[in-house]
Amino acid sequence: MTTRPEVNLAMASATGALRVDRDRLWLSLMELARIGATPKGGVRRLALTDLDRQGRDLVVGWLRDAGATIEIDGAGNIFATRVGRDGAAATVLTGSHIDTQPSGGKFDGNYGVLAGLEVLRTLNDGGIVTQHPVAVAIWTNEEGSRFVPVMGGSGAFTGVYTLEHVREQRDVDGIAFGDALDAIGYAGKAPVGGRALDAYFEAHIEQGPILEREEKIIGVVTGALGLRWYDCVWTGQDAHAGPTPMEARRDALRGASRMVEAINVIALRHAPDGRGTVGVMQVSPSSRNVIPGRVRMTVDMRHPDDGRLAAMDRELREVAEVIARELKLDCDLQQVDHVPASRFDPKCIDAVRTATRALGLPHREMVSGAGHDAIYLARITPTSMIFVPCKDGISHNEIEDARPEHLEAGANVLLHAMLARAIGARSSTDTGMKHD
Amino acid sequence: MTTRPEVNLAMASATGALRVDRDRLWLSLMELARIGATPKGGVRRLALTDLDRQGRDLVVGWLRDAGATIEIDGAGNIFATRVGRDGAAATVLTGSHIDTQPSGGKFDGNYGVLAGLEVLRTLNDGGIVTQHPVAVAIWTNEEGSRFVPVMGGSGAFTGVYTLEHVREQRDVDGIAFGDALDAIGYAGKAPVGGRALDAYFEAHIEQGPILEREEKIIGVVTGALGLRWYDCVWTGQDAHAGPTPMEARRDALRGASRMVEAINVIALRHAPDGRGTVGVMQVSPSSRNVIPGRVRMTVDMRHPDDGRLAAMDRELREVAEVIARELKLDCDLQQVDHVPASRFDPKCIDAVRTATRALGLPHREMVSGAGHDAIYLARITPTSMIFVPCKDGISHNEIEDARPEHLEAGANVLLHAMLARAIGARSSTDTGMKHD
Repeated sequence: MTTRPEVNLAMASATGALRVDRDRLWLSLMELARIGATPKGGVRRLALTDLDRQGRDLVVGWLRDAGATIEIDGAGNIFATRVGRDGAAATVLTGSHIDTQPSGGKFDGNYGVLAGLEVLRTLNDGGIVTQHPVAVAIWTNEEGSRFVPVMGGSGAFTGVYTLEHVREQRDVDGIAFGDALDAIGYAGKAPVGGRALDAYFEAHIEQGPILEREEKIIGVVTGALGLRWYDCVWTGQDAHAGPTPMEARRDALRGASRMVEAINVIALRHAPDGRGTVGVMQVSPSSRNVIPGRVRMTVDMRHPDDGRLAAMDRELREVAEVIARELKLDCDLQQVDHVPASRFDPKCIDAVRTATRALGLPHREMVSGAGHDAIYLARITPTSMIFVPCKDGISHNEIEDARPEHLEAGANVLLHAMLARAIGARSSTDTGMKHD
Repeated sequence: MTTRPEVNLAMASATGALRVDRDRLWLSLMELARIGATPKGGVRRLALTDLDRQGRDLVVGWLRDAGATIEIDGAGNIFATRVGRDGAAATVLTGSHIDTQPSGGKFDGNYGVLAGLEVLRTLNDGGIVTQHPVAVAIWTNEEGSRFVPVMGGSGAFTGVYTLEHVREQRDVDGIAFGDALDAIGYAGKAPVGGRALDAYFEAHIEQGPILEREEKIIGVVTGALGLRWYDCVWTGQDAHAGPTPMEARRDALRGASRMVEAINVIALRHAPDGRGTVGVMQVSPSSRNVIPGRVRMTVDMRHPDDGRLAAMDRELREVAEVIARELKLDCDLQQVDHVPASRFDPKCIDAVRTATRALGLPHREMVSGAGHDAIYLARITPTSMIFVPCKDGISHNEIEDARPEHLEAGANVLLHAMLARAIGARSSTDTGMKHD
């Protein structure tokens, strides 16, 4: 790609002082949060429901008003593109999702989309003409609360799943993803995937407590934890809690309970980035005076290093065997999902880091513990993410909260990281940010 | 009470060789088990259902055929009395229940009632006239599966609960005990309680593995474990399993899991008779990738010595505090039930022991770990129990099983223990059993 130095320098002076509008961003977030608002201040806007349609209609209208061209692909993913000077140049993309958890908050996903909208609005305000097109994506069904798989829209876009696979998934009422998508009028004509992308950035609340605890405003996200999910079933023997001596028992709940502690030990052995969680435990027969003969539990283990995650997997299997032998139980441990660790693109990470420094924002580098559309995008284009703090690290909850000035800061970093790619320069010294 | 030695001696020679009819007992058990039979060979005959009525009708018919006078009290308890020589003498009572668990077996309760029936039939076969009346009781709603409290019929009979309290309890469909009892036609006119009892014996499957493991046929039951039930709620903070570092978590399931292991340690510290069980554990929000913020669990602790049980209670509370402090959780531990340990009557225990020895049956003394109507009866009359083995110690299960020869042996012990009281003698040397 060729750039014209004289244009870059002129543009740099025009963009260096560019800032998003905090109030406009906040008001857009609050207006979108009215669609599916819950009494406790959260949002319930499940993928491909009529509420999702209302949310899409609102945001698409805003994006159109910002001068963007709207395209919708066969998975319902929406692309709002602001043209650049070079009609052949690859797009600098940002985005996230506007579907929520059943008891979700106002910021998870929504912030990434509306920060992208705010970037377009700010470029308009500044009269900025970029070399590359700049676009905002709204990915379908990131949460996976109504339809599995999670991140289905970006998964289809990046070739992780076929469109057919995604369309045929059914919700608990038996309604197919494809039928629900058709019903809300968002099954578009654009092909799924195949777009020429220059880079992808995604702004998101952290969904963890690290930034808040360390009083940082920006997380420069260098990658995402690898993840292994397991289903584990412990089988012993139901027996009456009174007449059965302790040494004669085969108590499945004791196996499961020891496993919970062992998983904690494994995660700590791989500190500081190892994670181990048991989120589900179902005890049967679940009677106050019956020794449980069967316990089903889930295991979630994560680590940013695939080798360490593989070691955690081995340790988990070993400890399951030891516990089963000691307690005379059967343990059926099955891995049901495995997502390798992601390492984001060094140049995209650098674009985020440089913008953050230029803006003078307290920051740290971090890996994403949660899944995001960016993790799939990273498979096909240079990618990075920008995290901002959320209150008490809480998300997937109606009390999810974030501060306007932090959301503003993240959107400014997004703006300048995208500009660093879009303006036609490839070096941070060309963006004008060094003067800030 | 006065006895006439010449009558006792004559009766002793007539009764010493008396034995129950194994096949008749077994066939009665199998016929009763057809009412509410399940595909897996168990029985589902919940208290005060039409199946319970059918079971009652069948057994009451058999008891009538055996010459017994039937009386039914206001709690639906049935008394089938075989008159004795002395019209003023107190009754030697046996009994149990014929309601079952939702997935129950053929023997729990049913055996105690039909062993009593077999005693009456055997006395008839031998032409035995006892000094005291001999009677069989069928207690209402022992299992407590449809209506709480458990052992409601014997509880009302012994004054633990008022009849009004028992009648107003409702099942999950909102149907009151009293209305269900009226509907099946078993709300009788006889007063609840106030009968003149000489003694109470109850034959039952062990519901534990001890007799089978030690190859004993009879358990001479000297009392019952005291019991404390608790509800325990652990509260931490829901958080996303990925982004939340291990050290920042307040994982309620870790608290509950440690408690499971601590309860096991406490029970073993009070070995061999201490018991500690967690039968129910409900995790919330119960999502694979969410750290549980709340776990509700039950605790069941038992010991035959009330002082030791009180010590177990203290240890439980201490360990809950320690765990809560270490894991930064809140723990709300509430005792919801407390049944003191029972010690059965030495003379009744001796009657069982003497009959067992005379019959040459391998036996051991034991305490009942489970609740039985006998535990309430022990509050108002001299009481003991007779246990026989059940397969693998399993009960409250459709696969509950017992061997005909063991059931026969237990019924023979019941017969001779009751005879020792009913014949008018108080010393085992007067029963003729010493000649066996």
